[in-house]
This record gives sequence, structure tokens and C-alpha cells, in this order.
Amino acid sequence: MTGTGTTGTGTTSAPSTPSTSRATIAAIAAELGVSVPTVSKVLNGRPDVSPATRARVEESIARHGYQRRRSATGTTSRPRLLDLVFHEHGAPWAVEIIKGVEEVAGPARVGVVLSELGGAHRPRQEWLDDVLARRPIGMIFVLSDLDPAQRQQLETRSIPFAVVDTAGEPPAGVPTVGSANWNGGLAATRHLVELGHRRIAVISGPADVLCSRARIDGYRSAHDEAGLAVDRALVRYGNFFVDGGYEHGLDLLRGPDRPTAVFAGSDYQALGVLRAARELGLRVPEDLSVVGYDDLPVTQWIGPALTTVRQPLREMASTATRMVLDLAEGRPPTNLQIDLATELVVRESTAPPPR
Amino acid sequence: MTGTGTTGTGTTSAPSTPSTSRATIAAIAAELGVSVPTVSKVLNGRPDVSPATRARVEESIARHGYQRRRSATGTTSRPRLLDLVFHEHGAPWAVEIIKGVEEVAGPARVGVVLSELGGAHRPRQEWLDDVLARRPIGMIFVLSDLDPAQRQQLETRSIPFAVVDTAGEPPAGVPTVGSANWNGGLAATRHLVELGHRRIAVISGPADVLCSRARIDGYRSAHDEAGLAVDRALVRYGNFFVDGGYEHGLDLLRGPDRPTAVFAGSDYQALGVLRAARELGLRVPEDLSVVGYDDLPVTQWIGPALTTVRQPLREMASTATRMVLDLAEGRPPTNLQIDLATELVVRESTAPPPR
Repeated sequence: MTGTGTTGTGTTSAPSTPSTSRATIAAIAAELGVSVPTVSKVLNGRPDVSPATRARVEESIARHGYQRRRSATGTTSRPRLLDLVFHEHGAPWAVEIIKGVEEVAGPARVGVVLSELGGAHRPRQEWLDDVLARRPIGMIFVLSDLDPAQRQQLETRSIPFAVVDTAGEPPAGVPTVGSANWNGGLAATRHLVELGHRRIAVISGPADVLCSRARIDGYRSAHDEAGLAVDRALVRYGNFFVDGGYEHGLDLLRGPDRPTAVFAGSDYQALGVLRAARELGLRVPEDLSVVGYDDLPVTQWIGPALTTVRQPLREMASTATRMVLDLAEGRPPTNLQIDLATELVVRESTAPPPR
Repeated sequence: MTGTGTTGTGTTSAPSTPSTSRATIAAIAAELGVSVPTVSKVLNGRPDVSPATRARVEESIARHGYQRRRSATGTTSRPRLLDLVFHEHGAPWAVEIIKGVEEVAGPARVGVVLSELGGAHRPRQEWLDDVLARRPIGMIFVLSDLDPAQRQQLETRSIPFAVVDTAGEPPAGVPTVGSANWNGGLAATRHLVELGHRRIAVISGPADVLCSRARIDGYRSAHDEAGLAVDRALVRYGNFFVDGGYEHGLDLLRGPDRPTAVFAGSDYQALGVLRAARELGLRVPEDLSVVGYDDLPVTQWIGPALTTVRQPLREMASTATRMVLDLAEGRPPTNLQIDLATELVVRESTAPPPR
């Protein structure tokens, strides 16, 4: 945790933070009636401080506006780690994100620590304490974010972070890399409208995830510009996984007035819709058109090869990683909030509607 | 890197390794005419030692049989990291491995650092130096391994490791978790023989990977026990990815005396064979039966749902992680080399051969 010679080590003999910071640490200690090493321990994420004391110290650190100076030597003598945080594991697109992060972190000789939040969009404090204790040079959050107090803790410790594909709406100062979800929803739906479809269903991701809502709004806009009304019964929120597409797919396709096309919101949901169609004896694309989202490598191989919206997951991740490494080295990127373009890829799963 | 107070910190004033180790370090330093801190730096993976000196120190450390004592306090005050090393990223089964590792590492509050070797089965030394510098509590290698000198470096530093799904044959003392590949190949081929197939092709993984060869030997044994000859033209080595299955699939299915069944060696290769069959106008399973290997979650959703051999990737990874954490805490597991069972899962892609 130490070894860089730039921060307190938990002993009073060798704190080497710059004198102003040292003065701040001393002032915080005096104000709270605790020792200087105790303040250092909290800053270094050491476990041997009571939760109550830790909370008081954190509060005072934030109030004093203390910020650890980024160390010049730290980059060579401390292990360089980057924390990559998923809100849950097992998502098929995680592989693409990991590749994108490694593409940049590997050559920079930065180790990537993988975490998941068990489906939560915000981490528990205990978990964050463990992260702070290993003092990563930066963090990347995928479909997850920190609360303001947690963000403050990273800022105090000069640990930069970026959010890939935000779940919510982080404040303006938080670096984010997303993709043009609204445009993706628009392009997918426009393609179906142009083929002649009039009853088009959409299955998006969870309603509390920003990108899901943007894709649905793109779907609505494509209807608007074609002068088509949206049937609310055809607008669904899934979970981005196969079973979400399968269950909504069965439900949508069983009725008498079934849609002739489904914009499935993710490639895995598209697989679920294809499965539902097979079970109901519907041929794709003759009886039903299906559009995915993501363009995962597998989609070009399945039968029928999937028409989908390419989302540059790998580039999103590598861009976010480059941002964080730049910030860690004191070079703020010119743009803090970036959306990369999405692109419709037409393959075999879409065709004009049946007559 | 230090902060635990149990090893040399690069200053002569505070080495606190046990006295015997200290004596060994002093002896090594004296023998080589270098300082004690220099020996400590090499042990701690610090970069500020010349490659030549580093090599001499490593050689002497190995010759003296020095081994760092595992620290009792290290488990609470040092960030606990586990290195998970893939020979390459992007393999679809990596997601399952990561889930299995996190299942055990997460609750133990151990951070998982992800690495890949760019397709190599053995790491470069520069990479290993970076790993040693962060002093993980253990390492897990997937389809990859260390050379004897690298293994020695981990042993010297008391960093336990395990190999999941070995590429080669590690020595008896190296903890490994695999699966019953031979039995998997046998079960897959037996199933096809029992359905009445006589011309059965196999596409395995790379010939230099042990599990590929075991699966092919299981395929041969199923032929032997049924009194069938193996046509060598039907035995192929792929790459475990979709394109390997697709290319061998096209080649196998284009000829006049084509096989009526393919054991595809991996689920992704099975996807490639299914694609090749579609392009050639062959129906699965009516004209061609296909068996995969792995039982990735996606295989039950594609059309036709894939008959495959379930490989317990997640359990393999969690078992290996438990082994390494046990070893790190000084509790050697009772069994060091374990193969978990594989199981045939019959779905829709296999049927009797066409008449």
C-alpha cells in the first residue's frame, strides 16, 4: 500500500505528503482529537480504524477539501492497477469490454482488476474500502456508478474514473463513454419501416437503464417520422438476456394481431425471439423480421445471420481506459463525455412483411 | 508494495523477514557482492535493478533454496489479489471461468486481476515481473502454464498457483483442475454410433493442447468398441472458435462421401458446422447430426438447440480458486490434481442418419 514514499505509512516518522497536505492532515487530526497516523490509515484504506472514526475522518477530509497529490514516483515503483467494475458478470458483451480495456491497459503494463456488483448499479461501501486499500491508478464502471459520497472518496485520493454505458445520468464532470443509443433505435426501426412493416414491436433493456430508454425513444421517432402510431402493447422492457427476449417474444407472437417485426434491444434477446418464433412455427425472415443490438461476434454465425445494430463496445472500453490513464498521469482529456457512433448491419433476419 | 512489515522494504533499517531468511538474504548478497537491499528488491519485483544483477540474484536465490515465509499479517493489511491468466481473451468460455473464480474470490474479498498472454501458452518474463511486483496471494492459469524457472520464482515468493484445463502436462506437484475430456469424447461419439451413424467426423481443438487430444482419443475408443474403423480424413484439428468449425465443416461436407455426423469439439465450432450445413442446404438433424462441447448457455437457445457435452467450466474455476486460497492460507488441499465429470446433454441437433 505504501512503498512510494509519497504518503503516510501509518507511522508518524515517515509521512512525506507535501507540506500543505501534511498541514491539512495535522489539522484534521487535531480537530477530531485523533492521531495523524489514524487520518493516514483512513486515506490508505487500512482496516484497523473503527467505522465511527473512519466516518468522522472522511467527513472532515471532504470538508477541508483535502486532496492527495498524485505521486510522480508512484507510477514506476507501485504496482499499477486499474479496477474494471461490472454491475453483474456473465453478460456476453462483457468479453468485448474486457478486450477493449486490455488493449490499452496491457501495453501500458497496468493490471486490470475485475469486479462485479452482483447486479447492483452502486457498490457497497465495504467493497469500495477494499478497492481504496489497493490504491488503483483509476477505475472504470460499466453500467454502474458511484453515489456522490463515494465519488468524493475517489476524488480525495486522486483516483480518476470513467463510466462506460451509463445506467443513470452522472454529473457533467464525470468522464463517460457511451454510444449513440437513440440513433441505434432509430436506424433499426427505420430499416423495418422501409421494408414495409407497420406492426413493429420493441423489447428494450430494463426501464431504469438510460440506454434502454434512448433506444425506445429512437424507435418512437422512427414511427413519428413515418406517420405511424406506436401501439403501447408492442413496447416491452426486458433484461438484455436471452430469456427476456424469449418470454416477451412468446407473448408478443402468440396473439392474433401479432407484430411482423421485432426490434429486440440486444443480440441475446434477439436469440430468445428467434427461439420463440421457431417454437410457434414462424419462419424468420419470411413470417417475422428480427433486429438485434450489439453485433456480438456470434450473431453473424447463427441461422439466420442476425440483422443488428453494431455498438462499438470494444472501442468504448478502450476509449474509457485511455481517458482514465491520461487522467492518472495528469493529462485531462479534451472531451470528458463521448458517445461513439452505432451502425445498422443488415444480414438475413429481416425482409418485407408477409402479404 | 510493502507496508506489511514482513519483508525487506528496500531499506536496510527495517527488514523483518525471519532471521534464517535474513541470514540467507545476507549470504546471497555477500556471495554476489551486492547489497542486502538489492536482494530484497529482486524478491519484491522492484524495477530498479539491472537485468544482469536480477538474473544473478534469482539464480542464487534458487540455489540456496530460499523461500519467503508466508506472512500472518499480510492477509489483513495488504490488498489481497489473485491473478487469473488466460492464454488469450475473447474465448466465449472465459465468461464461465471468470464467474467461477469470482464466486469464490468475491466473498473472500480477494480482487481478481485479469491477464492474457496474447495467445501464448507461456508468459513473457517482463509480464511475470509485473505480477511479482504486486505480490498476489495466488495465481490461476487457464490453458496456460509456467516454465520451470518461472514456477521456481513463484515458489521462492510463496505464491501458490493452479492450472485450469492444462494445455500441456504440468509436473505432479502442480495443482490442476480439468475435466474428463476423454470421457466426453467417448460419450459424444457413442451417442452418434448408437443413433446408427457410421461416418462420423471429429473437429477437435489445436493438436498441441492436451484436452483436444484426449477428446479425439475418446472418439477413437467409441469407434473401437463398436468395431468401426476411423477414417483419418474425418479427423480434424481446429481452433475451438467458430471459423475453425465453419472451414473444416465446409471441407468435410462438400465431398461425395460426406460424414452423416460431426462431433464438433466445442460449441463454437458446432456453430460453424451448423453454418456450413445451412450454406450447403443440409438440414440438421435430418441430413446431418452435430454434437458440440462445453454446454455454453447460448447452445440451448440456438436453432436447432445443440446436443453437447457439458463441461463444468464454472465449477472447475471455483475449485481451482478454492485450492489456491487454501494453499495461500497454508492449508494444502487433499487432492492436487482433479478432473471433474463431463456429461452428454441431448437436445435437437442429433438424430439417426438419413436412409
